[in-house]
This record gives sequence, C-alpha cells and structure tokens, in this order.
Amino acid sequence: MKRREFLRATGLGVAGGAIAAPAIAQAASTKVRWKLTSSFPASFDLLYGGARDFAQAARDASDGLIDIEIHPPGEIAGAVDALEAVRDGRADCALTALNYWWGVEPALIFATGVPFGMNARQHAAFINRGGGGDLIDEVLAGHNIVALLAGDTGCEMGGWFRNDVKSVADFQGLKIRIAGIAGKIVQRLGAKPVAVARADITAALQSGALDAATWVSPADDEKLDLAKAAPNYFYPGWHQPSLAIHIAINSAKWNELPKSLQAILKQSAALAHTRMLAAYDTLNPAAVRRLVEGGAHLRAFPPDVMESLWQAANDVYRETASDDPKFQRLHDAYMAARNDQYLWWQVAEYPFDNFVIRQRAKG
Amino acid sequence: MKRREFLRATGLGVAGGAIAAPAIAQAASTKVRWKLTSSFPASFDLLYGGARDFAQAARDASDGLIDIEIHPPGEIAGAVDALEAVRDGRADCALTALNYWWGVEPALIFATGVPFGMNARQHAAFINRGGGGDLIDEVLAGHNIVALLAGDTGCEMGGWFRNDVKSVADFQGLKIRIAGIAGKIVQRLGAKPVAVARADITAALQSGALDAATWVSPADDEKLDLAKAAPNYFYPGWHQPSLAIHIAINSAKWNELPKSLQAILKQSAALAHTRMLAAYDTLNPAAVRRLVEGGAHLRAFPPDVMESLWQAANDVYRETASDDPKFQRLHDAYMAARNDQYLWWQVAEYPFDNFVIRQRAKG
Repeated sequence: MKRREFLRATGLGVAGGAIAAPAIAQAASTKVRWKLTSSFPASFDLLYGGARDFAQAARDASDGLIDIEIHPPGEIAGAVDALEAVRDGRADCALTALNYWWGVEPALIFATGVPFGMNARQHAAFINRGGGGDLIDEVLAGHNIVALLAGDTGCEMGGWFRNDVKSVADFQGLKIRIAGIAGKIVQRLGAKPVAVARADITAALQSGALDAATWVSPADDEKLDLAKAAPNYFYPGWHQPSLAIHIAINSAKWNELPKSLQAILKQSAALAHTRMLAAYDTLNPAAVRRLVEGGAHLRAFPPDVMESLWQAANDVYRETASDDPKFQRLHDAYMAARNDQYLWWQVAEYPFDNFVIRQRAKG
Repeated sequence: MKRREFLRATGLGVAGGAIAAPAIAQAASTKVRWKLTSSFPASFDLLYGGARDFAQAARDASDGLIDIEIHPPGEIAGAVDALEAVRDGRADCALTALNYWWGVEPALIFATGVPFGMNARQHAAFINRGGGGDLIDEVLAGHNIVALLAGDTGCEMGGWFRNDVKSVADFQGLKIRIAGIAGKIVQRLGAKPVAVARADITAALQSGALDAATWVSPADDEKLDLAKAAPNYFYPGWHQPSLAIHIAINSAKWNELPKSLQAILKQSAALAHTRMLAAYDTLNPAAVRRLVEGGAHLRAFPPDVMESLWQAANDVYRETASDDPKFQRLHDAYMAARNDQYLWWQVAEYPFDNFVIRQRAKG
C-alpha cells in the first residue's frame, strides 16, 4: 500500500489536530485482518449492528490496524455453527449467541441468559464483575475460544400465538417455534417445539403448521409481519429475559495480539454492547405501538402458565445438571447471582419502576 | 526515556505475541499527558473507580500514549467545581456528575438523571441512541466542554431518616441533606434542604442538626455508618433513579487529538460505564443485607409522599422551564423519552421482574 493510501485508510490524513497521531511504522504483516462470521444477516439489522459496531470501533481506535471483515451466515458458517468455525480457525471470530451451541456445551446457555434468569443489566453485572465471565471463559477454553460480551436485546417477548392462552391446558399439543432449552421446558407442559427458519415463520403460522412462534421483541418482530398470522402477542419473554450477544475469538488468534490491541477489542465489545441494548430500548417503544395499531393484541401469560413454566424450568435445570458438572457449576453461580440481584432489585429499581408506571397509567 | 524503559512503560516488552505491536515512533511531545480532576476522593471508591477505569483503559488501548493523572477533589478543583476547572483549562478533563453544575446550567440535570426520571438503562439509551447526548453536547459546547458517559450508580436509596415517615405531614420542617433540584422539590412539602459535607453527615444526624440525609445506595452508604444515627432507610430514590457519571473534557484539548485517540477515549468511557454500574449491582445486595443485619429498617415511602413529591417535581420543572429555553428543550426531550421507555418497560421488563420477585417471595 502506498503511503498516501495508507494515510487515507487509517484516517491519519484527516485528523487535522495539533497532536500528531502515532506514526505507525508497521510492516504489512502486522495489520490484523480478521474474518468475522455473523450468526445474523444484515437484514436482522439490530443484532448484525453488533458486528458492524465492533468492527468499526476496533478500526477507529487502532487507526485502521485492526481490519475485521464481516461475513453473513452461510458464507463461512451457518448461524448456529459460528463457534465451530471459530474453534477450527475457519473464522477468526464470530458475533453470535453462545447458547446456539447448547447442544455441544449446555453450560453456555448461562452466557446468553436463560429462562427465568436475570434481566440484561443484572446479566451484564454477573458477566463483568460477578465472576460469570471467568466461569464462561473456563468452559470456552476447552474449545480454544475466548468471548467478549458485545450486545443484548433486553427482555424478549413471549411470542405470537394464533389463539388466546387462557390456562396451562392451552399448551397441550401446541406446535410452537421456540429454541434451545426453552423447547425442553414447554414440552413439560405438553407443547411440541418445532424448528422453523426465520423466513418461513409467518407462512407456517398462517397454514397452521405452527400454532405459535417466539422471535425477539417488537423492533425485530414487526419486520416479519407476524400479527396478521398470529395476532396474540404474549409477554413477558420468560424464556429469554436477556439475550446477551458475544464476540467469540479463536484463542490462538487472540494470543497473537499485543496487549494494546486486546484492550482495543475489549473496549470495542463494551461499546457495541452499550449501543445494541440502547438501540433495542430506543426502537421498541415505537415498534410496539405500531404493532398494536396494526392489529396485535398484547396479552400477559396467565399466572398458572407462568408458574408451570417456572416449575418446569427448575426441573429441566436440575436434570441437566445431574450429569453435567460444568452445567451444574454455571447454574449454581448464575442462580445465586440472580437471587442476590433480585433481592436488591426489589428494594430500589423495582419500586421506582412500579411507581412511574402507575402514575403514567393514571394519565 | 531510554528504549528499554519505553518498552516497559507501554507494555510492548511483555506482549509476547507473534504479531508485533505498532512500533510507535512518536516524539515526547505527542504523548497525551492529561490532568483529570475527580469530583470523588479515592475513599469513595466505586465512583472514583470510574476515573481509574477510564484512565487505565485509555492507557492500555493506546500503549501508554494516553497518560491521565487523577487528582482528587481539592487539588485542582473542588468536587462541585470540576467543570469550571475543565472549562478554564486548569484541568484537561474531569470525572463528575454534570448536575453538580445545575446552578450554572440547570439543563445539565438531564445529563445525570432527575427526580422521577429514567432508570439507568433507559437513561443510557436516551444518551447513546435517543438524541440526548447531542442535546447535552449543545449545552456544553457553550462552555467549551465535551462529555462522555462513563458510569452510573443505578437507582439510589431515598435516604436515612431519624424517624419513620408515615405521611406527607412528616416532611413539614424536616431538616434533610438532599442536593440539587431535589432540594427545591422537598421544600414544596415543607422540608428544609441543608448542605452538609460527607464527613459530617453522621454526626449531624446524631446531634439532630439533621433529621434525614440522602447519600447513594447500600455499597456507599454503609461506609458512613448511618444506621446508628438514623435507622429508617427509605426507598426508592425518587430523586435519583439514575446517577450518570461523565468524563468532561476541555473542547480545545479534545480537538487536538487525532481521531484514533478520540475513539479510544470514547470506548474507554463506555467500558468505565459498564464497569461502574456492574460494580454497584454486584456489591449492593450484600451491602443491603449487612445494613439490615446491623439495625437499618428498610421502609417504603408511603403513597401520599411519593405522589406529593411527583406533583412537586412537575411543578418545579414547569417553573424552571418557563424562563430557561435550554432547560425546556432538554426537559421535553427527556420526559418524552421517559414516557416512551416506560410504555415499553411495562410490557416486557417490568412483568418479568415482577414475576421473579413474587416467586422468590414465595420461597
């Protein structure tokens, strides 16, 4: 690369400040060119935005030294195979939900958020300061992967249902698109979890191949036009109170980096996390309003449904832990953190939210 | 500096990786040596930690090129004078709560969080993606300051009271340590806001010079041993549902930086924000438990007190806005965001929190 092009590419030529940028005199070989496999296509723009924000932040802070190329699912790996690609070195890193790999490592569900687990802020506290990050690193180390928290959707919705749900009996025989360990939980209530690709969900609900489907939350859900197929829009997303997104990195690639570039990647992930959660929070209010105006009926799961799901979740956790020590260890630490977090939440955060919500209801 | 020392100082000598760190061949003059004035002393460790985390992250990511020296309150500026010092160039930057400057710029309270405003996550969404950051930048531009969100305490507690509060009548004549615009609000209920320095709060409560005092939340409050002086520990912190912390930077100093170093500072602030909120969330549960074991009585403000404070806050906002267009503009944007955020909050986040709290109460 010619010097002029290098200056343009790294932004040095346009800084214009009185302090010179570090005169980076590196050979071409020191440039970090990484391939990132994203579990989400560009059309799934809020989640995909995590990859874009991460790559852009790393490029900006490193003056272009870190150059991460984003590949949509299907180019290097499928959406749920991203971690295999990182482990095997076909990709240098991935943007993914670590619980997509729960079939290989059930304990990884606690990296993403679990049924009746912690909300997004509590989850981040557990990962960043509560020891959760170290426990997840230990599990991933066995697969030559390191991971950085890089996003969250917040609490998801409980899904779209063709018919109203009045009691736990309505789960009997229900064909529902719901992923991961949550599928095992609804089975305990008699439902049948079905795997359906994103592009086919609306048609499957219309044809009756599906009775219900979970997706994410209003800002994502409205793109699939689900209200016309299954207008009963249930809350809360008991199965995914947080959906934490990670940047997963091949350990060998990570260890090759000098500490300064590792620091830049850590901070870029923190920035991406902040931006993704803020994007969902900022876009969901208008999206839920549009959905309701377009015919969606907001409905709360009845108490007996929530309590049966809570019980079923605890049963599934206990059984999974009984023959998986890694799962047991993460489960116990995660649930201890959840119980601590909610002890505090009910003192300050929850009563404040409660008061403002009630005042607003009064008009 | 000799080359060996430089390598040691920047960490290049210990990277040990296969990829060389950028060989930074800068002159001594290109090193960014900044003085940061902190509004919080090192003993106020969670808030002070924001300055430490910010400086460390910037140092790590820049390979030591950014060197920020932290000064406690009193060395360069007092706790509430930090922004003057940044504006006047006596400090290059500050870690502070922007609402400390509310006497100069009332609109800045919306950068920090306000009585009956948004919770910490909603507040961050407003600043980062909801247009709030731009509005605050406009206000600060008039003072040659730029600001980066760099921390939050979460919802504070409502304070320590010598006597129980049973109704709004108990606020009549109450001598209470409460800062900023919240002082104007409690005056509407007949209370007398009193300024008392941190070191003197406990003694003032014991002597009866104060009837009540707000501080922060359990992890900070327990250091002051307030329960022995005023055991009634009220919630929620209606006056401060978020306490956002910012890094404020002198605009001229900011503009001197190349874009890559600006990017590093932005990301370092994002990392510090994540770490501070996670620290409060992680430490508060055990702290509130210890406080209760030590004699604190947790009490909720009665509904008539909360409703009177809500009404008084709305009155104070309206009156302040009536002759301050900057305040009006921020107020309207902030409250529109709050109303949107709580519309969505009551659909997914709040019902989920509500369910888990109730299940846990059942045991």
